[in-house]
Amino acid sequence: MTTADPIEFWFDFSSPYAYFAAHQIDALAARHGRAVAWRPFLVGASLKLTGMVPLTQQPLRGDYALHDWNRMARLYDLPFAMPARFPVISVAPSRAFYAVEATAPAVAPQFALDLFRALFGKGVDITDPERIGEIGAALGLDAAELAAATRDPRWKEALRERTDEAIAKGIFGAPYVRIGDEGFWGSDRLWMAERWLETGGW
Amino acid sequence: MTTADPIEFWFDFSSPYAYFAAHQIDALAARHGRAVAWRPFLVGASLKLTGMVPLTQQPLRGDYALHDWNRMARLYDLPFAMPARFPVISVAPSRAFYAVEATAPAVAPQFALDLFRALFGKGVDITDPERIGEIGAALGLDAAELAAATRDPRWKEALRERTDEAIAKGIFGAPYVRIGDEGFWGSDRLWMAERWLETGGW
Repeated sequence: MTTADPIEFWFDFSSPYAYFAAHQIDALAARHGRAVAWRPFLVGASLKLTGMVPLTQQPLRGDYALHDWNRMARLYDLPFAMPARFPVISVAPSRAFYAVEATAPAVAPQFALDLFRALFGKGVDITDPERIGEIGAALGLDAAELAAATRDPRWKEALRERTDEAIAKGIFGAPYVRIGDEGFWGSDRLWMAERWLETGGW
Repeated sequence: MTTADPIEFWFDFSSPYAYFAAHQIDALAARHGRAVAWRPFLVGASLKLTGMVPLTQQPLRGDYALHDWNRMARLYDLPFAMPARFPVISVAPSRAFYAVEATAPAVAPQFALDLFRALFGKGVDITDPERIGEIGAALGLDAAELAAATRDPRWKEALRERTDEAIAKGIFGAPYVRIGDEGFWGSDRLWMAERWLETGGW
């Protein structure tokens, strides 16, 4: 690992905790001269391996999570409302992200953040290729190409590879930050990831 | 809730994350003029309700936890080794704690901390009433009385009541801090509990 390596930010667009972390990760990395590789994946594959069900379906834990998300939104002064359908099947926005990363990498992080904001901040259905196209268009991307990208085998394959990579790296939840080989699970561990960057590890 | 109310620190002696939090909670509360009510309970009852298995038995998540505990121990400069048998059945030390709380409340937090340190720092079997007696004796308590307390129906009942109380309060894991009605799960949320104390909530 060199200092020039980006830190990896693994997430599923369906994760409220990832939504909050997504607002902090670029600034956190920049404070230590690092870039961020945004890495959407399908966390459902990891949940299956670990025997977990989506958080909102877990007794007691689901109620806590709902309360906690609203509390975090107030703390970080971000809009937050649960999507009408949850969990969100994040296949389409994730494929679109990898298309943008390959063709217009400079706007890819902003595109990811705007997808998150549309979903949790504005109640937009980001599983709909048309909505994805509109979100991209606001950043100067071609809406029709972006909508088509959600069905393109290239980005379908890209997402599958990233999801396999996540599992190979032991990533069992989202968000999950990797600095070199060191992993930090959860939006409430960003402080520790930052300590790791500050100190070079311990 | 008045400022004079203690904050509640719910934990299971078997939890490594609670071991780390136990070293921080009194100082955290004291910085805001608050006392701490130490509340051991049997987290297994909560895990059963939520369908969870002990962390070390979960694929991927168990490996992460082991790595994470060692990493936290280095960060906080605390000794740490996994007990020979894990999870630890924490019935006996928890009953002993409630006996000490009722009869010598001033030393109860230190007694709890010493039990944690014996288990995770020195590899002592704290399920053994004799070892519990020795740990208490080092604090000036009567070793034989303490060993007997682990089988006393009064403290058996006290532990059962606290475990029921935990479930009634929606406490699904350990450690878990309550400030008034506000709950914070996990040793990695102490920063948020502290923010809550600083601000009076948000």
